[in-house]
Formats: sequence, C-alpha cells, structure tokens
Amino acid sequence: MTPEEIGRLAASVGALDEPSMAAAYERQLRLTKPTGALGKLEGLSLWLAGVQRAAPPRPFARRRLVVFAGDHGVTARGVSAYPAEVTAQMVRNLLAGGAAANVIARRVKVGVRVLDISVEGLTDVPPAVRQHHVRDGSGAIDKEPATTVDEALAALGAGIAVADEEVDGGADLLIAGDMGIGNTTPSAALTCAVAGTEPVDTVGRGTGIDDFAWTRKVAVVRDALRRSRHKGLDPVRLLAELGGADIAAMTGFLLGAAARRTPVILDGVVPTAAALVVARISPQAVAYLAAGHRSTEPAHTAALLHLGLTPLLELDLRLGEGTGALLAVPILDAAVDTINDMATFDDAGVSDRS
Amino acid sequence: MTPEEIGRLAASVGALDEPSMAAAYERQLRLTKPTGALGKLEGLSLWLAGVQRAAPPRPFARRRLVVFAGDHGVTARGVSAYPAEVTAQMVRNLLAGGAAANVIARRVKVGVRVLDISVEGLTDVPPAVRQHHVRDGSGAIDKEPATTVDEALAALGAGIAVADEEVDGGADLLIAGDMGIGNTTPSAALTCAVAGTEPVDTVGRGTGIDDFAWTRKVAVVRDALRRSRHKGLDPVRLLAELGGADIAAMTGFLLGAAARRTPVILDGVVPTAAALVVARISPQAVAYLAAGHRSTEPAHTAALLHLGLTPLLELDLRLGEGTGALLAVPILDAAVDTINDMATFDDAGVSDRS
Repeated sequence: MTPEEIGRLAASVGALDEPSMAAAYERQLRLTKPTGALGKLEGLSLWLAGVQRAAPPRPFARRRLVVFAGDHGVTARGVSAYPAEVTAQMVRNLLAGGAAANVIARRVKVGVRVLDISVEGLTDVPPAVRQHHVRDGSGAIDKEPATTVDEALAALGAGIAVADEEVDGGADLLIAGDMGIGNTTPSAALTCAVAGTEPVDTVGRGTGIDDFAWTRKVAVVRDALRRSRHKGLDPVRLLAELGGADIAAMTGFLLGAAARRTPVILDGVVPTAAALVVARISPQAVAYLAAGHRSTEPAHTAALLHLGLTPLLELDLRLGEGTGALLAVPILDAAVDTINDMATFDDAGVSDRS
Repeated sequence: MTPEEIGRLAASVGALDEPSMAAAYERQLRLTKPTGALGKLEGLSLWLAGVQRAAPPRPFARRRLVVFAGDHGVTARGVSAYPAEVTAQMVRNLLAGGAAANVIARRVKVGVRVLDISVEGLTDVPPAVRQHHVRDGSGAIDKEPATTVDEALAALGAGIAVADEEVDGGADLLIAGDMGIGNTTPSAALTCAVAGTEPVDTVGRGTGIDDFAWTRKVAVVRDALRRSRHKGLDPVRLLAELGGADIAAMTGFLLGAAARRTPVILDGVVPTAAALVVARISPQAVAYLAAGHRSTEPAHTAALLHLGLTPLLELDLRLGEGTGALLAVPILDAAVDTINDMATFDDAGVSDRS
C-alpha cells in the first residue's frame, strides 16, 4: 500500500447520514417510553442509523472480532510481568477457544479471527493465521524504530485488506482486539505523541507490573519519544517509529472499516492508540467508532478524551483481546432492538404526555 | 403475613458462603489472564459463588423479570408528565410484548412476568396478572398513608410468595421491575426517610417533568415526610406511610429471593427504594443484590450509596420496568462464563508471570 492509496482511502470516508439520524430521532419520539428515557441507547440508535444510512438501523447479522497479535522488542527491557513467549502461547489459546475473548464472544455471538501480524516464532499454526504476517516482532522503540516505513505501510495495507475481507464476508459490526506481551508500552508512547500527555501520566501497569517495572516502562516511553522527536507527526512515520506492525494493522483495520461504513467498537488502550493514528489519517473515520469500555490504563483515558469518545462500560478491565468491546455488544444490540421492536404510542394505545 | 413471620424469614437469610468464594478466587488465579484483569467480572464471579455455594458458580438456567405495577394517588398532584391511565395501558403493552423491557428481555434471554399489585381499574387482563392484587392504587402520601399496615403486610407477603413461586419454578436469577405513573415520588420519599437525604437533593425528573411539576413533587415528598415524621422507622410502617402496595411487594420479593439464596439484579430508583427497606428488615439480604445500573434519578444514587452498592452500568437510563437490570445480565453471564470456561495456564501451556 502506498501513502497515496491510503490518502485516497482516507478521503473516501463519508460522513454519517443525517437524514437517517433525524428519522431515527423521530421514531424514538413515538416509542412507548418518555423521550430520552433509554439514555445512551437512544444515542447509539441514532449513531447506527447514521452509519448504516438506515432508519431504524438494521440488527447486526454478522459480528466479528479480529485479534491482531504481535511481539514487541521492549519486552526485553522488563516492561511486562510476563515473558515474551506468552504472546505465541496465547495465540494458540485463542485459536483453541480458551481465552477470555473466546468465552465472551460465544456469549455475545461474535465470531473470532486471530491474525499473527508480528509474533515471533509462531510457525505451528494454520497458514490463514499468518496470512498477513509482516515481521517477527516489532523493534524496541527506546533504541530503534518499531518497523521500517515500508513495513508500517504493509501492515496498514494488511489491516485495510482484513477489514475488506470481513465486510465482504458480511460483517456489519467489527471489533479490533490485541494480543502481545509489551504492547501497552508502544500504545502509551503513541498516546503521548498524539495526545500530548506526559509519560508519567500515561504509562500504566499493563498486565500488573510492580513499581520497578513501571519505572522502566516510563523510561522506555520517554526514551522512545526523545529518539523520535524530530520525526514529526506524519501518521505512517508515527506507527513506524513508536507503534509496531500489529498496531499499524489495527490502524488500517479501523480506517478500512470506516471506508466501508461499518461500525467498530473500540476495546482498550492498544486499539485506541491505533484510533489516535486513524484520527490523524482521516478525522471523519472517528465517527465510525464507539468506545466499548474504559480500561484501567491511564493512556486509554487520555486517548478517549483526545478522540472525544465516552466509553459505554467502566468495569476496570485491563485484559485486551477485545474483551471490553465484546461486553458492549449487548448494549448496541439493545439499542437496535428497542428502536426496531418497541411498540409506538399509537400501536399500543398508550397516551403520550399531556 | 404477620410481622413475626417476616421476622423469622429475615432471620433465616444466610451469609454468603466464604469457602466457595475462596475457591472461586483460587480458580481466578489459574485462568489464562493476569490476575484482576477481568476487573469487576472477577468480583461478580466470587459473589455468585458465595450466593450459590458453588465454585465455580453455575450458569443461569432460568432468568426472570417480575414487573410490579401500581398506581399512586400523588399523580393527582401533577407530579408526572403522564396521566394516571398510562399505568394500565403500559401493563397491557408489557403483556403484549411491546415495552422496552420485553424487547431487551428477549435479547438477554429473560422471561417476563407482569403483576398488577395496585393498578386502578385494570380488569381486562388474565387472572394470573391480578393474582396478587392488593388494592386499587396507593394513597396520596402527602395527605394520607399509602396503604394500611395490613395492606403493606399483605403486599410484602405477596412479594415473598412471588419470589418463592419463581424459585420453585427454577429461576436462579431475578429482577424486580416497576411500572406505575407517579412511582418515583414515593421512592424519593422512602429514600429521604431511610437515607436521611433532603427532598430537594433527592427528587428527580421521573418521566421528564418540567420545573413546575418538579417543585410540586418536592412539596409532596416534604409534606409526606412531615405527615409521617412521628411514625418511626419500622419497615412495615414505612412502606405503609410512604411507599405503596407495589413497593411493598417488591420489598417482599427481594427478601424472599435472599431467603432462597437467589441473586437479584437491582434496577432503578423504585426497586432500589424497596431495597432500602429490605436492608432495615434484614441487613444480610443486601448481600444478594447487585446494582445493575445507575439511573439519572438523584434518589437512586443516594439509595445506592446508602446500600453500599456500586452500579455495573451508567447509561443514563430513567425508564424503569427492569430495563437497566436487564442490560446488566450479559455482564453477569460473562462473569460466570469466563470463570467456568476459560483455559487455565496448565491446560493451555501458557507461562504464568515470572
């Protein structure tokens, strides 16, 4: 994928459809409840009408979680509570259906796809899992770029292709999940770079690190920002310097989904860091995102604030894999169901307010 | 039902089972995720283990919403945006499956039962709906008691009987919903009386009233508290003076569920006012309650604070009918599913933290 192709795709992202949103609002006024009594569900129904260009919005027929897995060189700096080999082990766990995301996805009827974008040494998996593999691990961002610019472009292209594959396959609700030991470190670095926050206010405990590891993680983020500070805020360069192939692929996925007018539920700090980059590529694409939850990572709150998104859930999750976004799926379902299936005042013979 | 019988039932409410909670905690440590990474889901899994005396807790086999409908004499004071006949109309809408609660309940697989406890003039419904009817409307609490003490005892007994009927029928997760124009006024009065808050800080907009109606509603609550101020805080007397037959029935339902070790998801301001009274009858019974959501009614926040409960959702709902509690069902499902179905570190060959 070339920067020109990405620019053309970004320019193709359309606005939400205001007539559909207005029609959904009119319908909300006639349903058997006080106007506004369904709170955020009513706002979601208008948003989905605008995304789908349909009032009322259609129920979701095929919901899909794509987990983007990748390793990160910063793990060698002791920024995680878990060893690097856990990434590959957890990819196998996700493929076997034993991870938290699999379990929750089954309950909320979401199909799960796992992609090795930049995992190290994951050879014994079905070829489809490595179909979009870009490199073995991303660089240690305190000392080197996460990827080359060409690799970042390749990863962006892979994410766009995955979004297209999913939408072509009928998906009408998408979630990007992450899996990768060390991946909250580049996410925090991207958040500092885009949202302008300080590392000490942005770096969190990830999988549950102690004070010593947290101090090392802050230093890695600070060093990464210092190393790349003259490189500017060009989005592809940002992903190459501070992100990684997995985060670049998520960025492409979010952009591709918006270009195909498909809503995405954002999960935690890693896909939300990708969303910060998407917002620089195409501010319009942010309109296709709903924030599923607020994780305990400070970078997540900073990123959501920068994007102007309010999370639907606050359940103190810090797991990733798409889990927080999955838990928000029933709320979107309820928003669509109520506007479609509730009786109107006329239908039900209920008196409206006097 | 006599006060002595209620006292015996209250004394029979058992504590949560600590060995089951400890075993659930041990299991959480072995699942393929950082400890604590599932946030509130982990706490819910421990709570349900303690309620069910089972580790891991069993998935819910039969979830039931019981909507307690009733009219309130205060509606004549202009405290609602809707006319009193809407209560009966909405009961018919609930029976026909067209209300918000029906639509959301279908999505989250909860059966709905509607009971006319104290609706006025609702004769053209199946006899089962009026099986526990106590009276036609509750009194206008600014000038008169909501019910007699005998009626409050009868309504409490009805709610206890309904909980028993549901648990005998296999229900293992219960929700109390409300339907009744004017019912947030007695709920606010009960909240002021039990939690010690002032009417101006407690009274909300209900179905969406204007400033004039809100001022009248505050005056009604203030007059009701003044009228009953020498009556003491005996729980049955409280329900009779300030509550109403529907709220008394909900109170019995919550008490009966706790006595049968069955978890209840609390909905909005009306059932939570009933929970305030339950806490006075049996403090132990509060341990069987989870707060599903925080409504926009100030009395709801005051009551949750008094009960020491943190809501799972904050979606700005103000509809009642059990809608906010229904939306929390998938979160409880996810809590049960993850502790039951996730792989352990050993099963999946995943390295634990170093």
